[in-house]
Amino acid sequence: MTLLALSRGDPSGIGLEVACKAWLARGETSPPFLLVDDAAHCRRQAAARGLDVPFVEVAPSAAAACFAHALPVLPLGMATRGLPGRPDSADAQGTIRSIEIGAELVARGEASALVTLPVSKEVLHRVGYPYPGQTEFMGDLSARLFGATATPVMLLWSEALAVVPATIHVPLAEVPRLVSVDLILATGRVVAHDMTRRFGLLCPRIAVPGLNPHAGEGANIGGEEIAVIAPAIARLRAEGHDVTGPHPADTLFHAAARRRYDVAIAMYHDQALVPIKTLAFDTGVNCTLGLPFVRTSPDHGTAFDIAGRGIAQPESLAAALRLAARLSRNG
Amino acid sequence: MTLLALSRGDPSGIGLEVACKAWLARGETSPPFLLVDDAAHCRRQAAARGLDVPFVEVAPSAAAACFAHALPVLPLGMATRGLPGRPDSADAQGTIRSIEIGAELVARGEASALVTLPVSKEVLHRVGYPYPGQTEFMGDLSARLFGATATPVMLLWSEALAVVPATIHVPLAEVPRLVSVDLILATGRVVAHDMTRRFGLLCPRIAVPGLNPHAGEGANIGGEEIAVIAPAIARLRAEGHDVTGPHPADTLFHAAARRRYDVAIAMYHDQALVPIKTLAFDTGVNCTLGLPFVRTSPDHGTAFDIAGRGIAQPESLAAALRLAARLSRNG
Repeated sequence: MTLLALSRGDPSGIGLEVACKAWLARGETSPPFLLVDDAAHCRRQAAARGLDVPFVEVAPSAAAACFAHALPVLPLGMATRGLPGRPDSADAQGTIRSIEIGAELVARGEASALVTLPVSKEVLHRVGYPYPGQTEFMGDLSARLFGATATPVMLLWSEALAVVPATIHVPLAEVPRLVSVDLILATGRVVAHDMTRRFGLLCPRIAVPGLNPHAGEGANIGGEEIAVIAPAIARLRAEGHDVTGPHPADTLFHAAARRRYDVAIAMYHDQALVPIKTLAFDTGVNCTLGLPFVRTSPDHGTAFDIAGRGIAQPESLAAALRLAARLSRNG
Repeated sequence: MTLLALSRGDPSGIGLEVACKAWLARGETSPPFLLVDDAAHCRRQAAARGLDVPFVEVAPSAAAACFAHALPVLPLGMATRGLPGRPDSADAQGTIRSIEIGAELVARGEASALVTLPVSKEVLHRVGYPYPGQTEFMGDLSARLFGATATPVMLLWSEALAVVPATIHVPLAEVPRLVSVDLILATGRVVAHDMTRRFGLLCPRIAVPGLNPHAGEGANIGGEEIAVIAPAIARLRAEGHDVTGPHPADTLFHAAARRRYDVAIAMYHDQALVPIKTLAFDTGVNCTLGLPFVRTSPDHGTAFDIAGRGIAQPESLAAALRLAARLSRNG
């Protein structure tokens, strides 16, 4: 059984639009998904945007069977007010609840993986949501619903490149201090484990770039490679993982270089995001590793600025759905 | 008249090999070049590598005319010892002199631009070469040979992307401190001036990424965008330049984004080098802006590790030669 639970994201963003477009573009091999949302709001918004999508409220057990003919919705049980591009904090609890219900479906075995549409951190923070992002919320849901300790690690994935930022939403000035042996070790272990368990790679090849230009050029341009990154790589190798580096970052992402590894662990946000968004802007997927369940997400935000204009692209969501289905088949 | 002066670079690197291959691959529209080197060493090395190239020692005035039939060499007047992959500091003075002679040819109007093959900073520093790289040496040659004050600015150029790193070979930890209004202003002025004078763009569009993830997200993730980068952009705009930003770096380099600007000014080495080497690994050109003359270089190093093996690629040198010819036609 493959049924993906799809949380709605912020109802004033482009989530519903890309969900409708992904459903309209479905093919025979597209994995069926169940949108956790307020069906009345879906119908109003789809109609207002000229999206000819029949929504059907169904139980999870019936969702896959009707996916060919209608977009299945699991009722959220909360009315929704938000208009396109005008986020309303009255909807925030429903947005959070949609994620929880999606994870509950996976925990109960009624869905095989969770795909999340984008939320606005600012909107959720107004109602007391304590997490910096959905990735961290997944750690909490792992404990609550699966009784598992999780180490959530953000993977950006595309057909061209898979890359993990070891540090994420921190100022660049703080990165050199935050890059530690422990951080690289913990990240590397999760990446190695999940590339095997989820992606089915027996011995995943992990490449690690340096922090500094030319990977520090033998400590001529910064010392973190020798003091921190190389020792962490040595320990991961001693544990049996296939890890190389520190490599100069600038020559790690061209086509020939990418053939030499399965996933790269970057030191900071833009070292990971610049190459993947340069190579695969519309088809990147955000995937959380280190969880007891599979979670993916399109690699874009709520895009309030274009919400309701009908120009949002569903390719990233479609890729997120395909990847979630693929990973959940590996158990 | 288009004749390019080509300095030899380190004779133990791949310079001569790519020069020979570029000459062998010449077409009717290829700009002729004059290699400043020790012809006897060239003949020995080419023969040893199976490169069937006739070298001819000529005066600059005769070089273009014979380029179709032989690779013209301006004798350096210094014997050369270096073997492939085994740099010899006895050759360092000749390598430096080759650059000087090339610049002298341009200063006297006997060549239209200077193209430099890669040197080893380590080898040159052993004989007292005081510059961190060839880019800074160009500033000194500007003063000595052209009587001009120069502000050398490194541009990485390819058909897909042109990008300038505002800071270059410094540890990442020092970048936030070094990114200043004055630096961005000085860099932006040189870039705007030379994109018009050299590249022929009446009103070049310059894009500036932020330093932090998501360009700081309104100071939520670092303050340099608001404190430094935005004010510098505002001053450049007040001077009449078409400058936008600070943009999130991760969404600045995909195909649709690149159509919106002619050149980007990045804040640090890898923010510039990662996207251009990802997009154009074999065809990137290093071009020094801010000089009284045109200077380009292939975007690779001496590659001692593959020197003499016959596998070096001449595409970057060929692109550097084409760009030098194009820019020197604009005066």
